Amino acid sequence: MLTAGVIGVGYWGPNIIRNFYAHPEIIVKSCSDLKETRLENIKSNYPTIHTTKNYLDIINDPQIDLIAICTPVDTHFEISKAVINAGKNVLIEKPMTSTSAQANELIKLAEKNKVHIFVDHTFVFTGAVKKIKELIDKNELGDLYYFDSVRVNLGLFQHDVNVIWDLAPHDISIMHYLFNRTPQSIVATGADHIGNGLEDVAYMTIYFTDSLIAHIHTNWLSPAKIRNTLIAGSKKMIVWDDNEPSEKIRIYDKGIDIIQSDDQMYNTFIQYRTGDMNCPKLDGTEALKAETQNITDVLLRGAKPMVDGYAGLMVVKILEASQKSIKQRGLEIKI
Amino acid sequence: MLTAGVIGVGYWGPNIIRNFYAHPEIIVKSCSDLKETRLENIKSNYPTIHTTKNYLDIINDPQIDLIAICTPVDTHFEISKAVINAGKNVLIEKPMTSTSAQANELIKLAEKNKVHIFVDHTFVFTGAVKKIKELIDKNELGDLYYFDSVRVNLGLFQHDVNVIWDLAPHDISIMHYLFNRTPQSIVATGADHIGNGLEDVAYMTIYFTDSLIAHIHTNWLSPAKIRNTLIAGSKKMIVWDDNEPSEKIRIYDKGIDIIQSDDQMYNTFIQYRTGDMNCPKLDGTEALKAETQNITDVLLRGAKPMVDGYAGLMVVKILEASQKSIKQRGLEIKI
Amino acid sequence: MLTAGVIGVGYWGPNIIRNFYAHPEIIVKSCSDLKETRLENIKSNYPTIHTTKNYLDIINDPQIDLIAICTPVDTHFEISKAVINAGKNVLIEKPMTSTSAQANELIKLAEKNKVHIFVDHTFVFTGAVKKIKELIDKNELGDLYYFDSVRVNLGLFQHDVNVIWDLAPHDISIMHYLFNRTPQSIVATGADHIGNGLEDVAYMTIYFTDSLIAHIHTNWLSPAKIRNTLIAGSKKMIVWDDNEPSEKIRIYDKGIDIIQSDDQMYNTFIQYRTGDMNCPKLDGTEALKAETQNITDVLLRGAKPMVDGYAGLMVVKILEASQKSIKQRGLEIKI
Amino acid sequence: MLTAGVIGVGYWGPNIIRNFYAHPEIIVKSCSDLKETRLENIKSNYPTIHTTKNYLDIINDPQIDLIAICTPVDTHFEISKAVINAGKNVLIEKPMTSTSAQANELIKLAEKNKVHIFVDHTFVFTGAVKKIKELIDKNELGDLYYFDSVRVNLGLFQHDVNVIWDLAPHDISIMHYLFNRTPQSIVATGADHIGNGLEDVAYMTIYFTDSLIAHIHTNWLSPAKIRNTLIAGSKKMIVWDDNEPSEKIRIYDKGIDIIQSDDQMYNTFIQYRTGDMNCPKLDGTEALKAETQNITDVLLRGAKPMVDGYAGLMVVKILEASQKSIKQRGLEIKI
Repeated sequence: MLTAGVIGVGYWGPNIIRNFYAHPEIIVKSCSDLKETRLENIKSNYPTIHTTKNYLDIINDPQIDLIAICTPVDTHFEISKAVINAGKNVLIEKPMTSTSAQANELIKLAEKNKVHIFVDHTFVFTGAVKKIKELIDKNELGDLYYFDSVRVNLGLFQHDVNVIWDLAPHDISIMHYLFNRTPQSIVATGADHIGNGLEDVAYMTIYFTDSLIAHIHTNWLSPAKIRNTLIAGSKKMIVWDDNEPSEKIRIYDKGIDIIQSDDQMYNTFIQYRTGDMNCPKLDGTEALKAETQNITDVLLRGAKPMVDGYAGLMVVKILEASQKSIKQRGLEIKI
Repeated sequence: MLTAGVIGVGYWGPNIIRNFYAHPEIIVKSCSDLKETRLENIKSNYPTIHTTKNYLDIINDPQIDLIAICTPVDTHFEISKAVINAGKNVLIEKPMTSTSAQANELIKLAEKNKVHIFVDHTFVFTGAVKKIKELIDKNELGDLYYFDSVRVNLGLFQHDVNVIWDLAPHDISIMHYLFNRTPQSIVATGADHIGNGLEDVAYMTIYFTDSLIAHIHTNWLSPAKIRNTLIAGSKKMIVWDDNEPSEKIRIYDKGIDIIQSDDQMYNTFIQYRTGDMNCPKLDGTEALKAETQNITDVLLRGAKPMVDGYAGLMVVKILEASQKSIKQRGLEIKI
Repeated sequence: MLTAGVIGVGYWGPNIIRNFYAHPEIIVKSCSDLKETRLENIKSNYPTIHTTKNYLDIINDPQIDLIAICTPVDTHFEISKAVINAGKNVLIEKPMTSTSAQANELIKLAEKNKVHIFVDHTFVFTGAVKKIKELIDKNELGDLYYFDSVRVNLGLFQHDVNVIWDLAPHDISIMHYLFNRTPQSIVATGADHIGNGLEDVAYMTIYFTDSLIAHIHTNWLSPAKIRNTLIAGSKKMIVWDDNEPSEKIRIYDKGIDIIQSDDQMYNTFIQYRTGDMNCPKLDGTEALKAETQNITDVLLRGAKPMVDGYAGLMVVKILEASQKSIKQRGLEIKI
Repeated sequence: MLTAGVIGVGYWGPNIIRNFYAHPEIIVKSCSDLKETRLENIKSNYPTIHTTKNYLDIINDPQIDLIAICTPVDTHFEISKAVINAGKNVLIEKPMTSTSAQANELIKLAEKNKVHIFVDHTFVFTGAVKKIKELIDKNELGDLYYFDSVRVNLGLFQHDVNVIWDLAPHDISIMHYLFNRTPQSIVATGADHIGNGLEDVAYMTIYFTDSLIAHIHTNWLSPAKIRNTLIAGSKKMIVWDDNEPSEKIRIYDKGIDIIQSDDQMYNTFIQYRTGDMNCPKLDGTEALKAETQNITDVLLRGAKPMVDGYAGLMVVKILEASQKSIKQRGLEIKI
């Protein structure tokens, strides 16, 4: 049995509470927030949960094993450090920290204190991503060609981070989970239309050591909501439209075959291949429920974490490099 | 009355012939191609058109006023030069030339010889682009924010140029026609999955001197055919889906208002605005027919050309800069 | 201030409770159900609401002014009669009753007891229907031609009623609200693929005294979920796709003009007209919230009810006629 | 080798000529039409084809083996009779004749004269219908439940027939080809909004002797073009959207299992089943080309005709019954 606390119950915290609360192996003991109304909201829905304005009450509670941190990004490091130093496991909202140095420090600290860091890369636990991962792991896509993701809509402008820090953690964490490879470098471009130095439209190209390439388009100023990811390999290609209510993943039996030829004019010859398209049935479990299950499996039964501090660190590294690149008009930044 | 010849009747040439032929002010006198079967095909459909394997027969024909060049890009310069030197007007397939130096030379030569260069940026003549141009010119979009275009499918690999040179001339010429502004610099990235040095997936960011930004995604390796362009301004935003059979253009009365506030925490305040969406009825005239009309209006009645050599040059400059950038992993190249 | 009770808290009752509870002028005092688990569920979310297994406790409570009935259709009449006889206002789930005789009796009883009957035709309160009603009332559609509605999916088979009684009350109530006209007769066809005498696929044609015609297709055995309604008039035509997340209503400036001609061969001449398409922004208020507001406006401030017993009766009459027709293979049944 | 003539070269005739002309085993010798401009059009595209205003020239030509009739429906019978009496094979545009008596007479006459009647049910030769037929024949759909087809748009009003005679022959011929069963009766409803006695909106229900049911919705007054057919069986269900450029057929592994239970309350128990969805790659051959191939296979090599006079007769019978039913407000008409 785990006893949990939640720090920050604004937008995302209540979802964590709802899923922790529903899990038979977790008792949600307390939560904190600076805003009284948010605490009252939790209290009215979960009368048994203790609320406080001081998050140290939660960190100092010896009964608590696991603390979820759902506060603004720039507070993640300080609060997580305190949690880990108190010998407790921590679930940190994405992105894990504001800098990769901070993420590295937390990882070391957690290893020293023998506690677990979980980073809340929720998409990794969706039925769609699980299905794509399964296809990649079974080599059904063949050699991987590219990952191209578009995440745009007329979105809420953030006051502290640009559109990359706000939206791209989703795409980066998905890509990292699917490919499990370290990128080589980043080229990021974008523009700020408000004049506050925070880009609202941004494009990131992520190079790997071979011809695999990734591209992420994030945008707070799009008239239409688009959540569209293309993942192509030499054998099959996937279109994932997350706006689709049920047929999110389309697997195309399409591609090219590269034939080495003796033709003096062209040294290679391309053959096109098109076959059926398949929409697999996806696991409909709420992602956060599956994530909660993984956390309990790790802490109670020694399972392998799906998203640990290293995964969190990789996302922060890529965000950090993108930030440097975008400020220098696409200068290539090594990871 | 104009007398025309067509050099190159492979894929695009027959469309030029069909439209020139149907125009009451053009007589198509002759055409040339290196392949006999192509000439026979023209002959069977247009018994009155003279065919030849030697394009100089057309250039040397004193009756001919206008020659369309529909040959591979790397031959455009030589053939166009001969046409212009023979004192004839020329319509050149896009992209105009392989280098901006060549385009510049043709422009000077045409001015010296007092003939017209038309570049075949066909999309500029579609009902969709005309409608968007009209909205921009009436300032219905407000301050322009960005142009984002995706042109991808499992496309025919070219053996001589990469995917940018193959597909992006469409998007660049549309963007140039709509905005009529000179870009400042280019950042291009991409990957070659075949190993012949020609990128099959590419991304271009085009910077202007202010916060206007353009991005073009071209791809020969996409399972789905996407022709989607977003054009956003401070007042309205447009989604143009060229795959839609009839409702190609959606105009969203959506956007943000930036309010300067006295709030010490945030110096600007964003207000979101959403209203109706409108799909205007578009002019359904075939683009090439409208283009043909413009050519006759210029040559017979002194009208202003819609797409002249300077427009062709701008496209080539951007392609050229993209080529340099993509080979140096997104290095910013000034225009 | 109103004091309310809710009888039946299975699928729909909790939504009524949530909306009544959130309304500042309604106190939800109690609810009843035969199943203990459902009552416990309400109790845990609304600790202040009294629960009981005996609905008579609610009817006999002198403090209660308004009772919502969310029980199976065949119990609506008996329970509603008891509520009305107790001098209380009643909100009845659709369809109002199992027979039109029952609906008529309830209407008379309510008039005698000076209480209001509301029938829960929720769709009437959606932004989509309100917008269409507004267009019709302003005569923007011109002469009305037809109403064609498709409501199909792999739906939950009911054990007591066929697919018409289950799904068509939505479409009939929408149609009745929009047109406010009494149909002349019904032709219904369908098939039962299970063998229990309850049609799972059904088609209804509804005739009016002029050329206006309505058709409703309901189906529990469709692989795809379709919620598509066409409403056409001589001036404009509407496509309402309720599956669309935001652009539910498309208004087409399309139609025909009928020109009386002197041509001896054809006495009429048809001219086609196509213009822009417009998607108006819709009021996004939850329908049940708007419905709750109307109920309080009626009971506390004497407003006109949007959906009274007569509206409920009309739906039941059409269902009843459809039932007769479908059992006699499309025999026309007068209303 | 076959020598063919074509009577009627208005809308459809030129397509027949193009396909006959391209077939290596057919010589198109002559064609006729009452309008000179249509003949000139053929002449300019096919200088070798003889044209005439008198169709008897074609019928009386002893060299001709096969005559295609692409004239208005009410002339099909007289012309076909003359063709058959002249001992020639005939391809008749759909619908075959204006009455089933006429169709019967032509069938008998053809048998007597030992010639073949082909009816131009073109859809039967599409990749989509061939794939669905294949699935049904392999029993992949299980027991057939229903066929539901919608064929609507702002269509050309015909002056001589209603919307059923204009559009439904497509759906009826497809249904007949797929199921190969004789319907039991028809119920048809509809409305005429112009006042000339010809329905522009119509609905047909087709009953079979078991629970299989078909429904066809045809409409000349729809703002949107819809070509959507649902075909459901106990094992799988198909959605065929003919507007889709490439993924026309979706096969859903969805359905219900009916379990006989001992439960006293409900004698049957329904279990829902949902799995993957599959879009098979379809044969992209032009339907008319495949049809032409079948005709030559029949006439030159004794193959079985895909669409003979009996298929044409069945379509006419159903149209005839629909006509009777629609004029009597859905009165059930036996086939």
